[in-house]
Amino acid sequence: MYIEKINGPADVKKLTLEELPVLAEEIRQALLVRASKHGGHFGPNFGMVEATIAMHYVFESPKDKIVYDVSHQSYPHKMLTGRKDAYLYEEHYDDVSGYTNPGESEHDFFTVGHTSTSVSLACGLAKGRDLKDEKGNVIAVIGDGSLSGGESLEGLDYAAELGGNLIIVVNDNDMSIAENHGGLYQNLKLLRETDGKADCNLFRAMGLDYIYVNEGNNTAALIEAFQKAKDTDHAVVVHINTLKGKGYAPAEQHKEQWHYNAPFDLKTGMPLYPADGEDYSSVTRDYLLKKMKEDPTVVAITSGTPTVMGFTEDKRKEAGRQFVDVGIAEETAVALASGIAANGGKPVYGVYSSFIQRTFDQISQDLCIDKNPATIVIFAGSVYGMNDVTHLGLQDMPMLGNIPNLVYLAPTTKEEYLAMLDWSVEQTEYPVAIKLPGGAMISDGKEVKKDFRRLDQYEVTRKGSKVAVIGLGTFYGLAGQAADLIGEKTGTVPTVINPYYITGLDEELLKELKKDHDIVVTLEDGILNGGFGEKIARFYGDSDMKVLNYGLKKEFIDRYDVKEILLENHLTAEQIADDVMQVEQKR
Amino acid sequence: MYIEKINGPADVKKLTLEELPVLAEEIRQALLVRASKHGGHFGPNFGMVEATIAMHYVFESPKDKIVYDVSHQSYPHKMLTGRKDAYLYEEHYDDVSGYTNPGESEHDFFTVGHTSTSVSLACGLAKGRDLKDEKGNVIAVIGDGSLSGGESLEGLDYAAELGGNLIIVVNDNDMSIAENHGGLYQNLKLLRETDGKADCNLFRAMGLDYIYVNEGNNTAALIEAFQKAKDTDHAVVVHINTLKGKGYAPAEQHKEQWHYNAPFDLKTGMPLYPADGEDYSSVTRDYLLKKMKEDPTVVAITSGTPTVMGFTEDKRKEAGRQFVDVGIAEETAVALASGIAANGGKPVYGVYSSFIQRTFDQISQDLCIDKNPATIVIFAGSVYGMNDVTHLGLQDMPMLGNIPNLVYLAPTTKEEYLAMLDWSVEQTEYPVAIKLPGGAMISDGKEVKKDFRRLDQYEVTRKGSKVAVIGLGTFYGLAGQAADLIGEKTGTVPTVINPYYITGLDEELLKELKKDHDIVVTLEDGILNGGFGEKIARFYGDSDMKVLNYGLKKEFIDRYDVKEILLENHLTAEQIADDVMQVEQKR
Repeated sequence: MYIEKINGPADVKKLTLEELPVLAEEIRQALLVRASKHGGHFGPNFGMVEATIAMHYVFESPKDKIVYDVSHQSYPHKMLTGRKDAYLYEEHYDDVSGYTNPGESEHDFFTVGHTSTSVSLACGLAKGRDLKDEKGNVIAVIGDGSLSGGESLEGLDYAAELGGNLIIVVNDNDMSIAENHGGLYQNLKLLRETDGKADCNLFRAMGLDYIYVNEGNNTAALIEAFQKAKDTDHAVVVHINTLKGKGYAPAEQHKEQWHYNAPFDLKTGMPLYPADGEDYSSVTRDYLLKKMKEDPTVVAITSGTPTVMGFTEDKRKEAGRQFVDVGIAEETAVALASGIAANGGKPVYGVYSSFIQRTFDQISQDLCIDKNPATIVIFAGSVYGMNDVTHLGLQDMPMLGNIPNLVYLAPTTKEEYLAMLDWSVEQTEYPVAIKLPGGAMISDGKEVKKDFRRLDQYEVTRKGSKVAVIGLGTFYGLAGQAADLIGEKTGTVPTVINPYYITGLDEELLKELKKDHDIVVTLEDGILNGGFGEKIARFYGDSDMKVLNYGLKKEFIDRYDVKEILLENHLTAEQIADDVMQVEQKR
Repeated sequence: MYIEKINGPADVKKLTLEELPVLAEEIRQALLVRASKHGGHFGPNFGMVEATIAMHYVFESPKDKIVYDVSHQSYPHKMLTGRKDAYLYEEHYDDVSGYTNPGESEHDFFTVGHTSTSVSLACGLAKGRDLKDEKGNVIAVIGDGSLSGGESLEGLDYAAELGGNLIIVVNDNDMSIAENHGGLYQNLKLLRETDGKADCNLFRAMGLDYIYVNEGNNTAALIEAFQKAKDTDHAVVVHINTLKGKGYAPAEQHKEQWHYNAPFDLKTGMPLYPADGEDYSSVTRDYLLKKMKEDPTVVAITSGTPTVMGFTEDKRKEAGRQFVDVGIAEETAVALASGIAANGGKPVYGVYSSFIQRTFDQISQDLCIDKNPATIVIFAGSVYGMNDVTHLGLQDMPMLGNIPNLVYLAPTTKEEYLAMLDWSVEQTEYPVAIKLPGGAMISDGKEVKKDFRRLDQYEVTRKGSKVAVIGLGTFYGLAGQAADLIGEKTGTVPTVINPYYITGLDEELLKELKKDHDIVVTLEDGILNGGFGEKIARFYGDSDMKVLNYGLKKEFIDRYDVKEILLENHLTAEQIADDVMQVEQKR
């Protein structure tokens, strides 16, 4: 096999033009086998095999620098830049991350996992090159789905006046994760249909030069286009028309399902470990679909990840105009929700914790100053969420929890969540965010009678003394376990508290605790810095109460083992009980 | 005067087409007199007088809803919607805020002060209308300068598939605050030059319908265009060519200076209270210009506000390619800085505290994961900064201070700032942000020998006992004053500490304090929630140390009086000393 002999881009250049398509098939086969056993991003990589080969054939990486947007399409690049073993041999599958990674290779320039960043980052590399009076090409690769994101459009606009070499490869497979949404996709369609010749051209309107490649999975055509763009002295877009999932029939036919896949059967394409049963996605969808039927002003909003709320294609159809996908455009999703709420609608925006980071200003300025009653549901904001460094769900509490006027809630069970969600959708006073707990969904069947209008009222679920353990969201269960252990060790039953509210203190209750408690323990699922527990520590700062805050250290962690991380951060019942005993003994 | 009889849009409609230009001149005259005495946004309002009259002539506000981007151009709107007195009579000048404000009028729908939000917010209003099956026009007004912002481009893209009535008035005065930057402005120019007829059209490429009005300061032409767009069943752009500052010669000629103005002499246009002397803008500029000459890889970056770093037009020319204005595009500014740093350049991005909020994700993902050594200087992040609710500089510590890998520094003097800046520009290990102190710049002439490489090392500037006062940034001086008072009251000299580092604790020093201190006081210039002091409270949570955190309450405050706010938050030396005495006495 050719691929076995490729140890870097130089080896790609040794092949003849006729051999390159064979290399492409070998890469695809390796990707397919690995994906079936290991899972990962599928469709984007399959569509970009030929373009990646062509880039490494034409350009001189790492002197020429390629920046991949979101990195969903970077596996073939990794295979051609010294990391083929991680795709060819099962025992090496975990040698590489799922994203570009400067720690892995000199051919990677940034750790990228969020969309829409490549053009702006590449502009930076190019500007750095020019300031140093160096030569070389800088190439940004971006998928059509990522184009709708604000940072990408800003980057395209700025690229035109960068004033030096920049090549922007637009990998147009006519899909985002799901179907594309937004007016610019009409223009991409027009460009594809006119072989790039339409006068009305988004990229030219942004001041960029433009080359179109209709056969975006043909190495020869791609090489020709890249050679034409190479060493340009200005910014040029190479718009390539590719097929998402190319080479694997199920992925070509069902592009949305095959954007990312878990391990599957090679012949049938069926998942090896089918997920079933309820989860927070499905209960959100079921609640919303029911609610939509009762109330035409209820509307679900997604920014390009409809299934996070369980809205697969059929469910989106069922919801009709009450389901809005703004495309990858988190900022607009928040502003849209705010506007709908301001005009009497009932919007629910469902989003991953990692991606809500895009919207600090929109939540603050567009939503919270005017207190518009929109609901935001935060998924995977947990140590049990995604464990790639680019997709951590550990910062939503410092981010959202300190914005004035926002009510940020943390349910611990399905029942609490649905009660909060229903309250939030119906109330008209506050912008509300709900942080879903991590780990397996807990359903205890208990009816939730809590009146969420009375903000910041914590609930004592076990009345004790001496030690109080406040368990927020995910870690409410751990609070109970720690309390049990502390009780065993001290002979005194500790108090257990479910705080519900991340954004406010139950000052009355906290004051009350001073009477017969010496230690308050807080547990939260996120980094401690700027989070929930520190506010409790501040509250008790001038008193004799001892406060122990548990949560995660402020750090970027990558592909971590949850158990290890919990242990490192003393997030086990045993460790907490031991720590409490130590403080007790010092008294 | 007609304007005296205008109590709402209905009164505008009573005028004849011939009377409207007279009304325009009256509005302009009132704006001019008010601006000369009161200050405010100038050029944007002067250019939009006729368009505002035409909108209220054609549409039925508030049933038809107009959303102004950034609100710099909303004064004529306020005059026509029941708030004329605040522009006509000096004693009423302060009755209105400088921004649209739902609290003031049913004709305002959002409190808007940041750019690039109007299209997305208007999409929300329109979607709300459609969900309720109501009728009416929704109009987003946006300036050309705001178009480059990510949220605005996202909004334009989404607007095309909103599927209902939406009118986007693009107020094109060919200026941002300074000149425009970005490729899209070439297209706006082409459209102006071709009377809107060019085939390559950014708005059509975004899927939008399009109408061009060359005479954007002609009420009759505008009325015609708005009548054409009225009751459209889809999204249409009305692109109007206006003159920024129209009607006042100095403002027409010097558009950048007259974007916003302080009180001035009506005849000469010269400021009544000329600012002179050094400030943090001028010392930043002087440092950078000198550094640029020594090192061609040093580059200053702005996102549309070049003078925040003191770069007026002449200084921008002097810096040449070492000064980059990305236009209003904060996300791209951060990514660009990261890319430049990754490729060996030395970028310094200067930005207002209020606008850095746009970049949480870019700082986290694009910059800090890879620890690229870019420098960000945060201006006006202080209670002494801008006091409009939309421009508060009180949230940068919770926002930046909890992102892993970022080193966030707080100088207290000019000398400390320049030492930090120089260290940051030259080092290659960390992304660094510097929070400039508020109030008048303090320069004590002291040489700063501190080695900033040794992260998180606080400095004891006055060694005492019992009480330690940690004064961060702006409030370092207040820490000294409070310590003086506490010393007087207790007879024991307190310790005073300059922490320098917002993002990390000097654990060794804090531990050391336990030996001979009972109380630690922290002072910070920003909201307490998620900020600096809470981390100190957490650190001491399990110990006997009492901790008192001072800073601002988490709330949106508007047009506040600094003294009042400081008093409310116990940020005076007397209050702090009294609080400390109370805690002392309880011991």
